[in-house]
Amino acid sequence: MEALRKKIEKEGQALSENILKVDSFLNHQMDPVLMKEIGQEFASRFQGREITKVLTIESSGIGPGLMAALELGVPMIFARKRKSLTLTDDLLTASVHSYTKNETNDITVSSKYIKKNDKVLIIDDFLANGQAALGLIEVCEKAGAIVAGIGIVIEKSFQDGGKRLREGGYQVESLARIGQLNVGEILFESEKEMHKA
Amino acid sequence: MEALRKKIEKEGQALSENILKVDSFLNHQMDPVLMKEIGQEFASRFQGREITKVLTIESSGIGPGLMAALELGVPMIFARKRKSLTLTDDLLTASVHSYTKNETNDITVSSKYIKKNDKVLIIDDFLANGQAALGLIEVCEKAGAIVAGIGIVIEKSFQDGGKRLREGGYQVESLARIGQLNVGEILFESEKEMHKA
Repeated sequence: MEALRKKIEKEGQALSENILKVDSFLNHQMDPVLMKEIGQEFASRFQGREITKVLTIESSGIGPGLMAALELGVPMIFARKRKSLTLTDDLLTASVHSYTKNETNDITVSSKYIKKNDKVLIIDDFLANGQAALGLIEVCEKAGAIVAGIGIVIEKSFQDGGKRLREGGYQVESLARIGQLNVGEILFESEKEMHKA
Repeated sequence: MEALRKKIEKEGQALSENILKVDSFLNHQMDPVLMKEIGQEFASRFQGREITKVLTIESSGIGPGLMAALELGVPMIFARKRKSLTLTDDLLTASVHSYTKNETNDITVSSKYIKKNDKVLIIDDFLANGQAALGLIEVCEKAGAIVAGIGIVIEKSFQDGGKRLREGGYQVESLARIGQLNVGEILFESEKEMHKA
């Protein structure tokens, strides 16, 4: 997705070989026009999959998830990382380990909002080791829902999450794929291929 | 705002005299069409205020805040309740006490995104005691920015946050005002007035 790639090139910062900072438009400040375009792109890539719900995880997934849901004409649900006072229903839970933060959190979704036979589009801002996506898949499985696809804003394709999910048979659509990060340098997957050639 | 009021009447649940559960469309599951209408309503109410930034707080403020920012054509920033790994800049911070959770959190905003003379529209999902809004105002003040207005999706007008903010001279626009909650019963401000009459 060209607009996203340009934004990453212009504003992204490689803080280390693992960490890409994009908080000027995605993780802290959000560019609402870009978010809307991202939502349209996801809707287009998953057209015909008869999506009934979009599922994401707080906080940075909410923007892209909400815009995708708006385009698809379905509700969006964000999984909570911390328990909510008003989340008193039966809960669907999964453990998600964050390698960067080195902590494991239970994510929770009310069983009222993901049902048997729902066709769920999972959306997240980043895909690295795939832990968050696997947690959201687990939530869907516990509900008896069908994972219709996984939409990722930025995939760090040098980590194994994307490979693992695709080998699991899921349609994974990443709007930007980063092949390599060095401090101060961002190489997109296509560029990495060129460097190899 | 009629669509919001109808949604609250239909789907809101008064869990106690203080807690209104609206997680079918705002706090957990989100209705993207309603969020878009809420964004349009905020943009219309603050038209002419020359807003340059929308500021909200994770997680439930992100939906309404992003949609307001889209309509206004400005970026949206969400304050973080937990420190982020990539939030390594100079930080603007404020302490926010939650009465319902009985905990105090530091909220943080990167000083890169709220600047001197920015005209900031603060958006939040709920207004009760006003602690979150006051924290966001403090962040703006520390940045030297101007608080151009405060947009609230649901105000619990029987708590004193709205009064405090309006007495402070701020334009507070609440799209729904709840005058009283009893378990299983939601009275809007207008209805409470009628009950009094």
